[in-house]
Amino acid sequence: MIVGILGGGQLARMLALAGHPLGLKFIILDPEKEACAKGVAKHIHGSYDDPAKLELLAQQADVVTYEFENIPASALEFLANQVPVYPPRSALITAQDRLHEKALFSELGIATAHFAPVDNLADLKNAMQKILYPALIKTRRQGYDGKGQVVLRSATDLDAAWKTLQGVPCIVEALIPFDREISIIAVRNRKGKSKYYPVTENVHDAGILRSSKVLQQDPVQNLAIDYVQRLLHHLDYVGVIALELFQVGEQLLANEFAPRVHNSGHWTQNGSIIDQFENHLRAILDLPLGSTDSIGHAAMINLIGTVPKYEKILEQTHVNLHLYGKEERPGRKLGHINICTRDENTLANEIEALVKIAPR
Amino acid sequence: MIVGILGGGQLARMLALAGHPLGLKFIILDPEKEACAKGVAKHIHGSYDDPAKLELLAQQADVVTYEFENIPASALEFLANQVPVYPPRSALITAQDRLHEKALFSELGIATAHFAPVDNLADLKNAMQKILYPALIKTRRQGYDGKGQVVLRSATDLDAAWKTLQGVPCIVEALIPFDREISIIAVRNRKGKSKYYPVTENVHDAGILRSSKVLQQDPVQNLAIDYVQRLLHHLDYVGVIALELFQVGEQLLANEFAPRVHNSGHWTQNGSIIDQFENHLRAILDLPLGSTDSIGHAAMINLIGTVPKYEKILEQTHVNLHLYGKEERPGRKLGHINICTRDENTLANEIEALVKIAPR
Repeated sequence: MIVGILGGGQLARMLALAGHPLGLKFIILDPEKEACAKGVAKHIHGSYDDPAKLELLAQQADVVTYEFENIPASALEFLANQVPVYPPRSALITAQDRLHEKALFSELGIATAHFAPVDNLADLKNAMQKILYPALIKTRRQGYDGKGQVVLRSATDLDAAWKTLQGVPCIVEALIPFDREISIIAVRNRKGKSKYYPVTENVHDAGILRSSKVLQQDPVQNLAIDYVQRLLHHLDYVGVIALELFQVGEQLLANEFAPRVHNSGHWTQNGSIIDQFENHLRAILDLPLGSTDSIGHAAMINLIGTVPKYEKILEQTHVNLHLYGKEERPGRKLGHINICTRDENTLANEIEALVKIAPR
Repeated sequence: MIVGILGGGQLARMLALAGHPLGLKFIILDPEKEACAKGVAKHIHGSYDDPAKLELLAQQADVVTYEFENIPASALEFLANQVPVYPPRSALITAQDRLHEKALFSELGIATAHFAPVDNLADLKNAMQKILYPALIKTRRQGYDGKGQVVLRSATDLDAAWKTLQGVPCIVEALIPFDREISIIAVRNRKGKSKYYPVTENVHDAGILRSSKVLQQDPVQNLAIDYVQRLLHHLDYVGVIALELFQVGEQLLANEFAPRVHNSGHWTQNGSIIDQFENHLRAILDLPLGSTDSIGHAAMINLIGTVPKYEKILEQTHVNLHLYGKEERPGRKLGHINICTRDENTLANEIEALVKIAPR
């Protein structure tokens, strides 16, 4: 079986690394000449809206998936006429537009921050009559890793913020004074069976995920499952999905979802029986899902911008290093470290030692 | 860093799969057009004694290793003039010749079965005056997976056996009435540091390994470490080594060693903190060795000749499937299943269920 992937970054690379042991082969479509997944997959070098390249992918792949949201929905439509494509296009379209995403949360009874669409400065000023400061204005489309958003601290920020975002359709939402950020990774296969990993507590900095820690038997686990289940069911979803939530007291407020494998699920590579990458492949290939049970305690630290001294990391006992083979560049995700231990104390000690080597 | 591998079979494939997350790239030299490791490594298509191909490998690789014993030692010599090659040539040369291997065991005080060299029928008859029946006559070179050997049950078998082996240099040895077959996987890096995985109990059938089970805190662990340490030290070894031993009562008798990653160490992929493949790479790249500690209980079952129903295997909770992408053929190793659990009972139950799906 050959799996086609739109995008050839680190997520595609890790999907391929997880899939080879199942006897699968991979083919990526990516506009980058030196796509990160190239060493473990066949590479079609081209853009996501080139019909000839899409045709080539459709001809060779038995199933197609995607590794990020910013691909044209028309590409999925083109492919879906020739080959099964998962996750479904409706999930991609919803996730691509923050307004649709928030509206869906509301429709499905998934709690979320107050929000309003903003198409012009008047809309913004109007909306901010009802939403409390501080708030966030975000472009509806193309935002990731904290890009395309501005914080609004008072009414005097509105004009400048609107100018910064260059007049594209936006959404404004209340900035949540959260206790913590969590996410849940779920997977649903073509038969409609689903499984859930334990939630993780995530730390972001400048909009980029820095670290995730697995929460065992966390009190919010069931509520998180309830929310993500609503999405899975409504979207008739197939594959891995990640739902990011803010916890405020005992409440969870949905922030966004990603219709793909997710950075906050990377710990599963070493901390669970079957990881998110293999389970995504099993799901889209109509195979039985693997166990999402975790093995002991686990955390993940991202390596961003620079890779710290290799040897130092490898000297740590409970550490698994995952590099993406990408060149160093400020703010770029270059790899991550998984830390898995039998007991919580050892985990805390290893993290402490690592943070000195690889500052978050 | 680019790692060159002589041979592009499943061991090269699994080395590459373990090495990509360390940011390594791979290049294999293999005479098979559709070499098994091709999807995860660059492939130089050619024979091991073609100087032009070896030259190409040496130019591109930062370090070279090999995945099986039956490559000409001259190839290592050629390469070693241009690029570091590990494990050392002396280990390969010794392992390629059963007589040298047994002689080394004796020299190092590693207990082994009684043996004698056999260059002609008279030698054989002579040797069998001193060695008790049943015995085994084996070709000194080129034997693997039970090939190139004949059992001798009485003096009447000698003429026929010698004829079968076609007059090539042989070794005759006592057939050990062992209680069990075990092996130990060890790793030693360029700085001379070494680590040891727990021993496994192995089951062979028709000379081919069928399954391995990890023995936790086994009473023979220390003796096995003592023996393999002698080899590592004497050979100034770098990389992973496997030593196969027979247990008779409390005694261990060395059978053979393999200067490479080994089938009886495949369980480490899911049952240890750092597996044999990554540790082999760390060793030859002069990196700190990873922990060889096991995570819970583990076993491995080989898939030989045919791959049983895929879905059935994946339905088992504690199972990790590893297929090599090879075509089915009788007696061929096509993949393996690792089973890792927290407790021994679950392991026993899962193995029982699997044996029904994938008979050994």
